[in-house]
Amino acid sequence: MAKEKMVKAITSMEEDFAQWYTDVVKKAELIDYSSVRGCMILRPSGYAIWENIQKELDARFKATGVENVYMPMFIPESLLQKEKDHVEGFAPEVAWVTHGGLEKLQERLCVRPTSETLFCDLYSNIVQSYRDLPKLYNQWCSVVRWEKTTRPFLRSMEFLWQEGHTAHATAEEAEERTIQMLNVYADFCEQVLAIPMIKGKKTDKEKFAGAHSTYTIEALMHDGKALQSGTSHNFGDGFAHAFDIQYTDKDNKLRYVHQTSWGMSTRIIGAIIMVHGDNSGLVLPPRIAPTQVVIVPIMQKKEGVLEKAAEIKERISSVARVVLDDSDKSPGWKFSEHEMRGVPVRVELGPRDIENDQAVLARRDTGEKITVSLDNIAEEVSRLLEAIQHDMLERAKKHRDAHTYTAVNMDEFAKILKETPGFIKAMWCGDEACELKIKEMTTATSRCMPFEQEEISDKCVCCGKPAKTMVYWGKAY
Amino acid sequence: MAKEKMVKAITSMEEDFAQWYTDVVKKAELIDYSSVRGCMILRPSGYAIWENIQKELDARFKATGVENVYMPMFIPESLLQKEKDHVEGFAPEVAWVTHGGLEKLQERLCVRPTSETLFCDLYSNIVQSYRDLPKLYNQWCSVVRWEKTTRPFLRSMEFLWQEGHTAHATAEEAEERTIQMLNVYADFCEQVLAIPMIKGKKTDKEKFAGAHSTYTIEALMHDGKALQSGTSHNFGDGFAHAFDIQYTDKDNKLRYVHQTSWGMSTRIIGAIIMVHGDNSGLVLPPRIAPTQVVIVPIMQKKEGVLEKAAEIKERISSVARVVLDDSDKSPGWKFSEHEMRGVPVRVELGPRDIENDQAVLARRDTGEKITVSLDNIAEEVSRLLEAIQHDMLERAKKHRDAHTYTAVNMDEFAKILKETPGFIKAMWCGDEACELKIKEMTTATSRCMPFEQEEISDKCVCCGKPAKTMVYWGKAY
Repeated sequence: MAKEKMVKAITSMEEDFAQWYTDVVKKAELIDYSSVRGCMILRPSGYAIWENIQKELDARFKATGVENVYMPMFIPESLLQKEKDHVEGFAPEVAWVTHGGLEKLQERLCVRPTSETLFCDLYSNIVQSYRDLPKLYNQWCSVVRWEKTTRPFLRSMEFLWQEGHTAHATAEEAEERTIQMLNVYADFCEQVLAIPMIKGKKTDKEKFAGAHSTYTIEALMHDGKALQSGTSHNFGDGFAHAFDIQYTDKDNKLRYVHQTSWGMSTRIIGAIIMVHGDNSGLVLPPRIAPTQVVIVPIMQKKEGVLEKAAEIKERISSVARVVLDDSDKSPGWKFSEHEMRGVPVRVELGPRDIENDQAVLARRDTGEKITVSLDNIAEEVSRLLEAIQHDMLERAKKHRDAHTYTAVNMDEFAKILKETPGFIKAMWCGDEACELKIKEMTTATSRCMPFEQEEISDKCVCCGKPAKTMVYWGKAY
Repeated sequence: MAKEKMVKAITSMEEDFAQWYTDVVKKAELIDYSSVRGCMILRPSGYAIWENIQKELDARFKATGVENVYMPMFIPESLLQKEKDHVEGFAPEVAWVTHGGLEKLQERLCVRPTSETLFCDLYSNIVQSYRDLPKLYNQWCSVVRWEKTTRPFLRSMEFLWQEGHTAHATAEEAEERTIQMLNVYADFCEQVLAIPMIKGKKTDKEKFAGAHSTYTIEALMHDGKALQSGTSHNFGDGFAHAFDIQYTDKDNKLRYVHQTSWGMSTRIIGAIIMVHGDNSGLVLPPRIAPTQVVIVPIMQKKEGVLEKAAEIKERISSVARVVLDDSDKSPGWKFSEHEMRGVPVRVELGPRDIENDQAVLARRDTGEKITVSLDNIAEEVSRLLEAIQHDMLERAKKHRDAHTYTAVNMDEFAKILKETPGFIKAMWCGDEACELKIKEMTTATSRCMPFEQEEISDKCVCCGKPAKTMVYWGKAY
């Protein structure tokens, strides 16, 4: 009964995917809306996922020599304007501080939408010699972009992220770092979030404001839409010229530095939800789940049940993040509550189980139940978590591959998008006019020019002229 | 020579303490100034200290049941105004966002100076029943206060902190939590930062805007000035009334919650500098030092020296955060650089040491050097770090006690402040007029009414009327 009630409370994804998403986000208590339009509150269950993402990514960054810093959240208008393309890209969507205390400011300050300008300003002060390079800085912070329409995690006015900003002596080193960080993101997503990524380069139209080139990782959601999940930019020496960041090389000559930036945000939590979730709610990959195992005692008022459950918890805690739910709700209610929250493994333990020296393990991803001996429950749980992590990635890969199509003309292209949305691999002549036309005709955008190229045809899917590149296209969040 | 040069570059603390402080902060590369007045950049050496503070405090918070969340950085003007005392306290010093993108906002948003109003707004939505209590939320974020004069770490327009906000069923529970978190702060400062704290209650004049009572921990800096290092507030049910935060109790009656908030900020890094630092720069307590041990090879170009140093590093890394400085600077230069940065232990290792199977360990806090056998260098380093941590706390306690005085009349009071600045313990009648008069006469403020009371006299130090409480007074940052 209780279970019915909670499950009924969310819309099925087949019926209305957008509503299903909103329901999961609210019912799993990941976020709440705040009194400021488009700003979300990250509740404990949502923030704990972000904390785990931070821990994992931060360790990977530091292993490549990155150091963390903290830059101010305000950027003077004049500083934002120093790089022409950059200010054009961001000025229309920033929040402006005009008053401090009771006084009007002489110069407006924008709340950072991203911090390239601040890092450039710092580098121009602290980089003098080749000995000062490379600078490999990163910061964890929130940024603000004045979006017209917002959706939890996917697009909000303020969001949490990390932004890495590096300065290098040579163009080669900068390009190498740009790709290195893209690979860090892709590996993290695959190994920890169980989300397979397409790695590639953005077209000029889609690249970051001020960048020479932007690389991206793109994931496919359950509904066949794409989600840009992390980006890494190579700025060349454009910002260095705008901000006069020069160093003296070994031959005592002045040279401009070459820069990169790369970011991943709370948006990736949207990907976790939309890649793995189902009609019972969230499904979290074990490596990122704040709670990996929940123990639900059955007939917990019977003598010995809670004691045994506590003992089992103790044992499992050596291999997993485990909680014992001994609240006074019914087991059925607890089952559906922890399913909604996406806890990978549930341990059911009742008087009869204890008598038989066993417990039931239920997988969140498949619903499958197995009975295991209490003697080696820690090992069983550990093995099961590994299996779930592995299977979730395999399923996500299968889904993505099954929803990746090829098209050689616009009829095919449009038909696929309409009937079986997913990634479309199609050739492109390299002309922005075709990109714009495809978007106008189908609402699909170029997701990336993947590193792994295929020759689908020798003609552009749009204009029929000779093709230069294979592009992944798709409708995107 | 090199050493001379770096040391000469900072002002001695006896000559000009304020300048010494600024010099250390800059030369140890903890911060840099940004292009926004009063906003500082936390550089890698500074931010790494904050990361360690976060890790330690966060674990202590979580051990008491606290959960982390993230709230928006913007507060609508109408929300800030809901609690009368609170808005009066903060409105004059907030930054206002008036434009989003190209449009003027209908309602101004302030950049959070603190987030009581946001947490209250959330609690009014999610607290319904006694089952929902307590709520023990915390967030790590930055806040903005439009200060007129700023100093690195001590007072800046934007600073990093954590703010805990809890809601409880009863007044007793709220008071208990308020004191519990004050104790968490004090224990952390003593055990990890080696800074002894005076715990006590703020007078009404000094309490937080909107609080029933504010508790504080106060530390004494090297120059005899006090630094408020962390505060914990009990709001009673004042905010609950203003924001209508009610819950249904077990008897189905509606009741108002009782709330607390508590915070510690990057300001505490200022305390670390001013309690432990010396004329060679920063002195970091081992438990908070990002680098605990630096190995400086002597004659590192000689065959075998760097190899041995790497081997020693490997061994020490099992007990401490260790780096090997194999840069091409001279050993003397490295010595003073790492002294400036406050690294607790330096290992000197040259060809002759290697021949004798030994190394020299130099303590940053005392300058003392000991020669140890390479065979058990990890144990020796580990023991030395413990000894340094212990001794630094003892020295800080001794300094504080030696600079804590008693006064029974205003002549004594003024003389102490003028000649030997420090804490002054003196009796107070409880009248705000005396507090104001003392401040006017001496610039000293009441730091706290300590939990550990003494009866210095039975008369108020200022007016001579019957005394109610002993107060710690002092000049404060």
